[in-house]
Amino acid sequence: MRNKKCLPDIVNNFAEWYQEVICLAELAENCDVKGCIIILPYAYSIWENMTLILNKGIKKMGVVNMAFPLLIPYSYFEKEKDHIDGFAPEVAIVTHAGGKKLEEPLLVRPTSEVIVHNFFKNKISSWRNLPLKVNQWCSVIRWEKRPRAFLRTSEFWWQEGHTAHSNYEEAICQAEESICLYERFCRDILAIPVIVGKKPEYERFAGADSTWTIEGMMQDGKAVQMGTSHLLGDGFARAQNIEFQDKDMKMKTPFLTSWGVTTRLIGTLIMVHGDQKGLVMPPDIAPILFSLIPIYKNNYEKSIIMPVFENLIKILDFYNISYFLDIREDVTPGVKFFDSEKKGIPFRIEIGLRDIENDNFTLFERDICTKNFYSINLLANNEDFYVFFNNIKDFMQKRIYQKALLFRDNNIFMGDLLSNFGPKLLKENGFYISFWCGKGEESFKEFQASVRCLLEEDFIKERKFGFNSFQKKCCVHDFGCKESLQLCLIARSY
Amino acid sequence: MRNKKCLPDIVNNFAEWYQEVICLAELAENCDVKGCIIILPYAYSIWENMTLILNKGIKKMGVVNMAFPLLIPYSYFEKEKDHIDGFAPEVAIVTHAGGKKLEEPLLVRPTSEVIVHNFFKNKISSWRNLPLKVNQWCSVIRWEKRPRAFLRTSEFWWQEGHTAHSNYEEAICQAEESICLYERFCRDILAIPVIVGKKPEYERFAGADSTWTIEGMMQDGKAVQMGTSHLLGDGFARAQNIEFQDKDMKMKTPFLTSWGVTTRLIGTLIMVHGDQKGLVMPPDIAPILFSLIPIYKNNYEKSIIMPVFENLIKILDFYNISYFLDIREDVTPGVKFFDSEKKGIPFRIEIGLRDIENDNFTLFERDICTKNFYSINLLANNEDFYVFFNNIKDFMQKRIYQKALLFRDNNIFMGDLLSNFGPKLLKENGFYISFWCGKGEESFKEFQASVRCLLEEDFIKERKFGFNSFQKKCCVHDFGCKESLQLCLIARSY
Repeated sequence: MRNKKCLPDIVNNFAEWYQEVICLAELAENCDVKGCIIILPYAYSIWENMTLILNKGIKKMGVVNMAFPLLIPYSYFEKEKDHIDGFAPEVAIVTHAGGKKLEEPLLVRPTSEVIVHNFFKNKISSWRNLPLKVNQWCSVIRWEKRPRAFLRTSEFWWQEGHTAHSNYEEAICQAEESICLYERFCRDILAIPVIVGKKPEYERFAGADSTWTIEGMMQDGKAVQMGTSHLLGDGFARAQNIEFQDKDMKMKTPFLTSWGVTTRLIGTLIMVHGDQKGLVMPPDIAPILFSLIPIYKNNYEKSIIMPVFENLIKILDFYNISYFLDIREDVTPGVKFFDSEKKGIPFRIEIGLRDIENDNFTLFERDICTKNFYSINLLANNEDFYVFFNNIKDFMQKRIYQKALLFRDNNIFMGDLLSNFGPKLLKENGFYISFWCGKGEESFKEFQASVRCLLEEDFIKERKFGFNSFQKKCCVHDFGCKESLQLCLIARSY
Repeated sequence: MRNKKCLPDIVNNFAEWYQEVICLAELAENCDVKGCIIILPYAYSIWENMTLILNKGIKKMGVVNMAFPLLIPYSYFEKEKDHIDGFAPEVAIVTHAGGKKLEEPLLVRPTSEVIVHNFFKNKISSWRNLPLKVNQWCSVIRWEKRPRAFLRTSEFWWQEGHTAHSNYEEAICQAEESICLYERFCRDILAIPVIVGKKPEYERFAGADSTWTIEGMMQDGKAVQMGTSHLLGDGFARAQNIEFQDKDMKMKTPFLTSWGVTTRLIGTLIMVHGDQKGLVMPPDIAPILFSLIPIYKNNYEKSIIMPVFENLIKILDFYNISYFLDIREDVTPGVKFFDSEKKGIPFRIEIGLRDIENDNFTLFERDICTKNFYSINLLANNEDFYVFFNNIKDFMQKRIYQKALLFRDNNIFMGDLLSNFGPKLLKENGFYISFWCGKGEESFKEFQASVRCLLEEDFIKERKFGFNSFQKKCCVHDFGCKESLQLCLIARSY
């Protein structure tokens, strides 16, 4: 019998719990290259599901997939000064290839703006070529000092969308449309509520005009930046001398955007929904929906129980519903339950002799760890099962989201003065909403916190956090601040 | 009106024709890093179709997808001497990262055997862990001296499967099963007939026991290696000290395989099926199946014609059949025809006012460049259209394959003595079947040819190449050769 390893306490030891879940559910492994990981099959199939779903949304925006080179000439990066300054400390550099020292070193892409924009330059000459919208799925390298599986790794997998537009307004629309796609994906598929906002100026993507972010709250109350969308304006295009002839025959510079989500999303799935038993997978992203566990002591019982599963499998195959039939001979049902729970498989169907006698089957629902009995007839008819399945699936998906939303909203607080709420934030985490003038960002570092994003003021009105008596004063400089104030989200983050 | 660019003559100037098709059909572009390419959206969607179809076949073999790091410690490669000797001249080396010089240089993966085997080492301790079968989709870097788009590029995209087995026989079966998967994929989906055989010893993958290859014939009579499967034996596992306890309690070394196909397949699609007008896409791999071209001179005609297309589009959407509705206002129907032809879109539906009056529509089939008229009622009913579509699609798929097969078989010849057939081979290409002792491979180089693979002797019997009177003598050393002889396939290659 295998080890039923216990996880560290999720409430008191969240960081260690996270690392152990990754190990227990066989999601990723470290490797000998500092900060790089191996993505194991179960986590990779979560990523495959994410790519399939996101690809549909990306293509609906009129974006086409393509592939750009991994290696970028050093001189490309030098064209955009802010950009190279931002990425220089993180890049990996190829100096030798084909048995020789290279004349010009090559960068392993940390992101592909410069190479995509060089491509844009060749493609864009007229307003007829715009908008131009491309996307690529790949891995990128950004050397990471404090790696943490999925959240911060020196190599990560992502999609990077890049677009060019003839005017600024259209570029803004695209940047917003992309961040909204990510928001919906997180909410509807990952069952994770996120807060959308703009990054403060000093946290923008190197060289961008604006950066939108979606911020999710983990179960320890810390924030994770789950996706970003950058309005690059015309700075990058000017740096590369991209120009087009507009309808009015004048030569103009196009406005660019870029946006991406990464394998970090796998980390947030773990951290938002996991529990003391391991992963909890929302059904709409789960690689395996059903764990099927026949329980029998001898061949006679087996001969009665297996036909029920064989029929169920026909139905599952018919509707293309994923499952794992656990007929391992060398482990007990208890171990099988444990294994299906640690991987967060949404539904488990257990059938033993007594169930058959009672015309029942047992359904275990992972998120609430509850068993219920249902009529075994539900497993005998395609349409009956499908209706039943859609009901329990949609219900679980909503339940998981509502739980995460409730937790998040219960841990969003009004922040008055940073000197007042800072110590509590440092100790207990959570999100703080407060006004800020935008100066003195180092004040937040004192409490290991940062401004995650800037918010529209109706953020307070729309949501009922009990902020009605919110006073508009700068959380860093108090009423003495003469600058214009901006509502912002303050939190500790990964 | 856009340029209707003419392609170089496909018969007399095949190499240039190939480069021009890639440009005309917008498949790939060169970039500033020597030998690397940008894969443009249309070619990338061909690759996406390939990955979707191959993934199903790969998963059916019990293989799971995962992701391994891009960068490999130099010391990993040193463990397998033949392997590092084979790849050393081609690798790209990262010497700096994170703003510092690295203590140990890192290789950008040219292939992932060494890193996968290091992973295997941690995963395999008992016979219960075997077989272990993994696959990864990624790009790899092998510095290329004479790059040619898709066929030889310094970066290429591929899948690499890696498996471990408890005994040699099982490993052989896997290596053969994988090459058979590729053979079927080429035949049934790409409509390309291939010859399966083992590589001669000196052409094997660096460090492998055997390498199987599939060899396809291009329209200039040259060969392309379209996929390989390597039986690595236990050499790689010994080099990495991978061991497992077998059922008999003894410690044993597992036997490994690896196998892959690359974006080179896009190049072969072009070279096998293309014609003077451009690409010809077999329907089962085509990114776009239908080009829809309404032909009207004024708004009145438009108002009559467009509803027919709108209804057809509903049907195509219903069955998830891909199409491109060409309603560009600034180009003539002639240009639209030209554009759909250069991209090899299998079917084109043209409808003008006269077609409507005659209750007809025009169907252009790209492979045979033939127009036929069909009753317009076929476009009005879901089921009628679907039956019709499946008929013409299957028929075209088979027709394209048969054409390629006929061409290939017409250009396979019996090779007697190399000194006799060599000059003809050098001048006119084609495949030559002959016996050889395995020594003096430089003799083939005289005619810019090589032994593509070794064949079973029943290759001659099974196929009707008129080789009945085939005499068994060494094509290099004549009757004087005392070595055992092996049937082999000799050709010039890309």
